[in-house]
Amino acid sequence: MDITTCAQKCKDASTSMAALPATIKNQALEHIKDVLLKNGNRIAKHNTADIQKAKKDQLDAPLIKRLKFDSDKIAESCDGIDSLIKLPDPVGVTLKATLLDKGLELYKVSRPIGVIGVIFESRPDALVQIAALCLKSGNAVLLKGGSEAAGTNRILADLIHDAGVRSGLPDGWLVLLERRDQVTRMLALNDFVDLIIPRGSNAFVKLIMDNTLIPVLGHADGICHIYVDSKAEADMALQICTDSKCQYVAVCNAAETFLIHEKVAANFLPQLKKQMDKHGVTIYGCKKTCAIISCDQATQAHWQTEYLDYKVSVKVVGSLKNAISHINRYGSGHTDVIVTADKQRAVQFMDHTDTANAFWNCSSRFADGFRFGLGAEVGISTNKIHARGPVGLEGLMIYQWRLIGNGHKVADYSGPCARAYLHTELNLSFKGDA
Amino acid sequence: MDITTCAQKCKDASTSMAALPATIKNQALEHIKDVLLKNGNRIAKHNTADIQKAKKDQLDAPLIKRLKFDSDKIAESCDGIDSLIKLPDPVGVTLKATLLDKGLELYKVSRPIGVIGVIFESRPDALVQIAALCLKSGNAVLLKGGSEAAGTNRILADLIHDAGVRSGLPDGWLVLLERRDQVTRMLALNDFVDLIIPRGSNAFVKLIMDNTLIPVLGHADGICHIYVDSKAEADMALQICTDSKCQYVAVCNAAETFLIHEKVAANFLPQLKKQMDKHGVTIYGCKKTCAIISCDQATQAHWQTEYLDYKVSVKVVGSLKNAISHINRYGSGHTDVIVTADKQRAVQFMDHTDTANAFWNCSSRFADGFRFGLGAEVGISTNKIHARGPVGLEGLMIYQWRLIGNGHKVADYSGPCARAYLHTELNLSFKGDA
Repeated sequence: MDITTCAQKCKDASTSMAALPATIKNQALEHIKDVLLKNGNRIAKHNTADIQKAKKDQLDAPLIKRLKFDSDKIAESCDGIDSLIKLPDPVGVTLKATLLDKGLELYKVSRPIGVIGVIFESRPDALVQIAALCLKSGNAVLLKGGSEAAGTNRILADLIHDAGVRSGLPDGWLVLLERRDQVTRMLALNDFVDLIIPRGSNAFVKLIMDNTLIPVLGHADGICHIYVDSKAEADMALQICTDSKCQYVAVCNAAETFLIHEKVAANFLPQLKKQMDKHGVTIYGCKKTCAIISCDQATQAHWQTEYLDYKVSVKVVGSLKNAISHINRYGSGHTDVIVTADKQRAVQFMDHTDTANAFWNCSSRFADGFRFGLGAEVGISTNKIHARGPVGLEGLMIYQWRLIGNGHKVADYSGPCARAYLHTELNLSFKGDA
Repeated sequence: MDITTCAQKCKDASTSMAALPATIKNQALEHIKDVLLKNGNRIAKHNTADIQKAKKDQLDAPLIKRLKFDSDKIAESCDGIDSLIKLPDPVGVTLKATLLDKGLELYKVSRPIGVIGVIFESRPDALVQIAALCLKSGNAVLLKGGSEAAGTNRILADLIHDAGVRSGLPDGWLVLLERRDQVTRMLALNDFVDLIIPRGSNAFVKLIMDNTLIPVLGHADGICHIYVDSKAEADMALQICTDSKCQYVAVCNAAETFLIHEKVAANFLPQLKKQMDKHGVTIYGCKKTCAIISCDQATQAHWQTEYLDYKVSVKVVGSLKNAISHINRYGSGHTDVIVTADKQRAVQFMDHTDTANAFWNCSSRFADGFRFGLGAEVGISTNKIHARGPVGLEGLMIYQWRLIGNGHKVADYSGPCARAYLHTELNLSFKGDA
């Protein structure tokens, strides 16, 4: 099938998806779980073939590792589906209700977005997770996976799609694209795809963001800062710096830069150095930092580097204001932390820092959908509209205004004898049952 | 000043704008009102010059009419500012609060988006309105108006910017761009501009949407449908069709197509024809329509035409499902209405129609921020993310996650002795005062 036909099919399916009752969606999720568990051997066969081909093609070891989709991964995916089943249906929730006039009721009701385009690199677990998230939220999904995982993705997509259709989902609710050139063409399908979610490296996400008019939900860099204020408790600051940098270095919410107020630098930096040494973290310091502790000198480039490694940039700043300016200039609007005992300064930091997650006296590593208790994580967004920070199912939702009248006309509300609007809040939910 | 410098200045100002207390913002709005009222003569002088130049350049009469910004327009603009002052501050509202663990509190707090880019055609009132909306919502604003209104826009921008600065707003909170080539350059400023709001003709809005990676809030077409169901009360359907089409034809929420269920067509169409004749509306009907009433035959092109005029397309459809398919294919996702006495069919219509405003038994003309009681209207959006339908100040807002701990580290929540998260809802608002 040509890509426009695929996309049209997915778009057509999206209107039925949007109208599905919660029971059908949950049954479909149960069926998908069953089918994945029952077809472990078939999936393994395809996955082994993908891995063998990758080895033959001499792909990098970490990439081959990410390719693996064995019974443990299936079990993990099914756990994820289980927790989705337990969540309330995000579709059809009344967000606001207003009585415009007698018998004229306005409801703002949550609705699925429509067609979600997902482009992901090798990890096949991403396919299962995103398909389940789209299903639960009543969206149709157009998927494009990495060519290395082609066999695994194909069997997973077929199993999931068909289990869904057998449970009452419309044919075409999930469409897998398989040719590499289809990514570029998908990015141009603004008439059919309503939102793109990219899953992969920073460079990959950036490439997608820069090449489509379709809204993209996600983040490229995660250059997170810990600012140790003049009013910080040294021991707390030390622990937060260590956790934020060292607890797991390869993730977007790990700290990449420490900003240290000059009043506490002489005392704090040697302790920080000791901790970083203990964890094998290399420090790239500004001139002032280098004058206090022994470390490599940072260049301009270090302030805009996301290491994802046992490396950290350190800068001494003259004021809270300077710390904020540095973050707003070099940060990526992901997660930024202030350590201080002074609430007023903490609030000033949060009010002025242009970031999705503004934290006070805790680790940057908490920036995560699971830790936030969102139930399911669609991704982490550094966008300035729609959804920001860790995004749960609400990132896959929009709303519809539903106005219910009894023959009401605008003409009656204009001119010299115009009726007035009431505009009173209604404590009611939109009820779909007759 | 070069455009990147302008945009950088605006971006810098946006962080201070985001942190302003409500009192300062309301005082600034009061000052702006005063300044506009006191400088009526100066504004009139510049506006007269613009109009004289437009006449000399032989611009179209409707365009010249829209250019006019006299004392009536000033008074109208000031009324708008007054109603904005009365609205609660949209910044800093706690949208959600969760206790993650003892002493670890998560707040989702409303925040301004940042820099709003506004591109508008000749109407200078748009400048005043959008500047006031951005101010109230704590956003900085980069404006580009039509060259015909250059003098009026310049004096208005200067007066408004300076009145704001005198009230405590940061320098550069409002920047007016004046060269035509700057529109194209503004559309490429994704590092500085967070959201674009275009105000003008459909073609103008479409051009902007198709040429920028920056999110755009707005709508191009407004091809609104009225579907008269087999279960519709004929008299109510007639009144709704008439109000939706004829109450004011030149607006986006006016109806452009009537879909009539075949069971009622023979009875309903002659009555509809009589009403349309009375209002001087030309009907373009499908073959079946033409067989029942005398009218011009519609071609494929009519289903996708927004007339904004005394013209309407009429189609006989075989079922509710066909009506929905027609709307999903040819509609613009703006406003679509079902007239029916059957609730189940109305819900089916709303659940399956991909539209921002799904109405039941009332006129499409109600799709409007004022009528919805939103307090202020930023625009009407047909987007599938962020904001949809009539958009109030919340369209200029995003949120920030604020996590407040007491030295909390992620390491304590992992491994064999991991602490568990509580994830209990907090009935608290984030308080900024120390």
